[in-house]
Amino acid sequence: MYLPRTAVIGAGISGLTAGKMLNDYGVPYVCFESSDRVGGNWAFGNPNGHSSAYRSLHIDTSKHQLSFRDFPMPESYPDFPHHTQIKQYLDDYCAAFDLGSAVEFGNGVTHARRLPGGGWELDTQQGQSRRFDLLVVANGHHWDPRYPNFPGEFTGHTMHAHHYIDPRTPMDFRDQRILVVGLGNSAADIAVELSSKALGNRLTLSTRSSAWIVPKYIAGRPADKYYRTSPHVPLSWQRKIAQWGQPLTAGRPENYGLPTPNHNFFEAHPTQSVELPLRLGSGDVLPKPNITRFDGRTVHFEDGSSDDFDIIIYATGYNITFPFFDPDFISAPDNRIDLYKRMFLPGMDDLVFAGFAQSTPTLFPFVECQARLIGAYAVGHYRLPAESDMHRVIVSDQQRYTGHMLDRPRHTQQVDYFLYEHDMRTRELPAGAHRAASQGPPIWSHAGEQATTKEANR
Amino acid sequence: MYLPRTAVIGAGISGLTAGKMLNDYGVPYVCFESSDRVGGNWAFGNPNGHSSAYRSLHIDTSKHQLSFRDFPMPESYPDFPHHTQIKQYLDDYCAAFDLGSAVEFGNGVTHARRLPGGGWELDTQQGQSRRFDLLVVANGHHWDPRYPNFPGEFTGHTMHAHHYIDPRTPMDFRDQRILVVGLGNSAADIAVELSSKALGNRLTLSTRSSAWIVPKYIAGRPADKYYRTSPHVPLSWQRKIAQWGQPLTAGRPENYGLPTPNHNFFEAHPTQSVELPLRLGSGDVLPKPNITRFDGRTVHFEDGSSDDFDIIIYATGYNITFPFFDPDFISAPDNRIDLYKRMFLPGMDDLVFAGFAQSTPTLFPFVECQARLIGAYAVGHYRLPAESDMHRVIVSDQQRYTGHMLDRPRHTQQVDYFLYEHDMRTRELPAGAHRAASQGPPIWSHAGEQATTKEANR
Repeated sequence: MYLPRTAVIGAGISGLTAGKMLNDYGVPYVCFESSDRVGGNWAFGNPNGHSSAYRSLHIDTSKHQLSFRDFPMPESYPDFPHHTQIKQYLDDYCAAFDLGSAVEFGNGVTHARRLPGGGWELDTQQGQSRRFDLLVVANGHHWDPRYPNFPGEFTGHTMHAHHYIDPRTPMDFRDQRILVVGLGNSAADIAVELSSKALGNRLTLSTRSSAWIVPKYIAGRPADKYYRTSPHVPLSWQRKIAQWGQPLTAGRPENYGLPTPNHNFFEAHPTQSVELPLRLGSGDVLPKPNITRFDGRTVHFEDGSSDDFDIIIYATGYNITFPFFDPDFISAPDNRIDLYKRMFLPGMDDLVFAGFAQSTPTLFPFVECQARLIGAYAVGHYRLPAESDMHRVIVSDQQRYTGHMLDRPRHTQQVDYFLYEHDMRTRELPAGAHRAASQGPPIWSHAGEQATTKEANR
Repeated sequence: MYLPRTAVIGAGISGLTAGKMLNDYGVPYVCFESSDRVGGNWAFGNPNGHSSAYRSLHIDTSKHQLSFRDFPMPESYPDFPHHTQIKQYLDDYCAAFDLGSAVEFGNGVTHARRLPGGGWELDTQQGQSRRFDLLVVANGHHWDPRYPNFPGEFTGHTMHAHHYIDPRTPMDFRDQRILVVGLGNSAADIAVELSSKALGNRLTLSTRSSAWIVPKYIAGRPADKYYRTSPHVPLSWQRKIAQWGQPLTAGRPENYGLPTPNHNFFEAHPTQSVELPLRLGSGDVLPKPNITRFDGRTVHFEDGSSDDFDIIIYATGYNITFPFFDPDFISAPDNRIDLYKRMFLPGMDDLVFAGFAQSTPTLFPFVECQARLIGAYAVGHYRLPAESDMHRVIVSDQQRYTGHMLDRPRHTQQVDYFLYEHDMRTRELPAGAHRAASQGPPIWSHAGEQATTKEANR
């Protein structure tokens, strides 16, 4: 059997798990990493600029949910590990499965060109041009800051949460009038950290959609130990139950002075913070609705109020960006890219995306689940359905996972891990194996035949 | 009617409410305050050294419970006001009831001597000697730091939570190995603040008794909105119900790595913190049991482990101290002082204590309730029972409020506000009024007679 020459772009959690599973299936591959280290987003201070981690960042999912199924987290780890511990865990994962030897550090892919008839030519950071049969795109979607656009001009300092490190870095956040825009996890963490009375800041938080805030612990156990979507109960019922239970765990955002959310509980990703409600309730963080316009140092809000600020921190999410693809070829405008099982572009059999989802509760076992399919796919144990079927399933899956959600860039990629994993394990992999038995050889087999022929002719 | 010449020691919440009620009953009084401002503990940075407030301190009781019944907190206040807002509230209280004019600032009482036959001679800071008929002691019990005693010598820096201000004051708390001793509210707040990853400290928390930790919010409402002891249901039942409900709100301390408490829920004052469980669960705060001994920079713990530290912060409570009384005359060894209704020393009718309790949920309306009785007492509307009855009631009240609690200095003064207020309003004040009708004139009437006689003889 001809095994595809495989390239993986990126050595973050998606690239590493893909590499591990390719190894398991005996598929040789090269992992192109622009940085000098693995870990991507979880490599705090990553020299390639692709880490959004701030110094105090702890993961918002408990280690029980977070662990790769192939590599449990150490018993000694706390419930909610610090980013340094996540990085250590990824280093240990690399060492345990000898993943480092396949990584070319400091040699990211600068351009990826699809060859006529299939296969890829990759230009790399070190000036090489390399050919592969199968390309795994795992360059992450938490590194290219997304900025909103408001009328007028703000003449104070503007930055994105991506660049926030700690109260002294990248600037001195003391005795400042600070506006944090957004109400996701980063917005909550940064607002809490910078509203500490010890820093002397005046902290305001502006939110467009508001959000439901859930605690990290419920009754002394990590909250996500209670959440587990079942594939056997209609999703609409489960969402209804969650909506009922919500007041018991956290209460309505209005209790803390936040605007009324424009969505029901679980219709959008909730924000995990135990500290933000307290800071709001203590008057340390002042809530405001969306911004309407800027005027010098003055920011005007939707409720007609206005205030002056020194610094605006946008915690407004990230763009999905593929800098190595020509934008006309493949891009994700407004973070929309239609992928079969969030992995395959219909009509392009030699390209796989890994990790392009907002997976609830966490991305870690999700990318591992995708990686399992990548391994099976590379050796021909899994084959895709017909292009028309793929388009149909993309629409129905999207409806299933995000039909109840707001139509916003941050929600286009929403996936429920438990449902996704159940679907992949019990339906998609067996169906793909069935298709493999009845279909012809994969696209790269032709490349393999040519290669073998050339070899023979030599 | 002869009104007693009354002195109040201290212009904190106890002295101010006492003064307000004395005014209401038309009793002239002088309030002796060692500082240049009112507010006592709530005057952050109080020059008399009697404030234990740190910069980030918010009150742990919601404003709904906290308000004096005579003077509601402003609507604009957050649920859990900052200490600056409490101070402003006390200033507003003073202004509304014109309390400032009775306060002699910078003129604390240095010595109080009881005169033969009753009445008091007070020496003051400004070198005066002043005579009064009735003395109200309201000098507070949160200003004289209590230190535990462990064998060995710790050669690092040692301080008490009383002196903690913020991460840069009184010293630079960065990149330090810090041990916080205690698990009360101050210990929790300081441990949380100094364990911020941004400071680079390694924070350990040692506790002797462990504690149950309860959140400030439950289901989006201040937690204390749910707690209200009823005088109509046996207390033992109410404590049992609280014990059942506890896991729903906060879970067991062991979940966060804390030692098993040596007491049931509600058998000792619980610690209010939403942040500490999170910091423990994130590995930012390392829990340890009690200290066994010191050896240079090394601290040994009861579980046999040891570690090195640069700084120890004792958040181990406060002594009840009356620096103006000769210790042989009146003192509170181990914070024990037997007071009738926590106000009167049997056999000393011209002395009242105000604010000497750990009142749950808060001291604010409690001191106001005591102040009401002080006013009634000064004008003879309330009289004390016989000395032997007072001794008997002291024992039964103590049993009622703290019989279920640990025998520890911090619990000697525990009182349930709702029960106390109900008892005072429905039983004690009416009974005292009844006694007033059948007893002779108060002790200071003789002084009044003498004064009148002297006046007449002149």
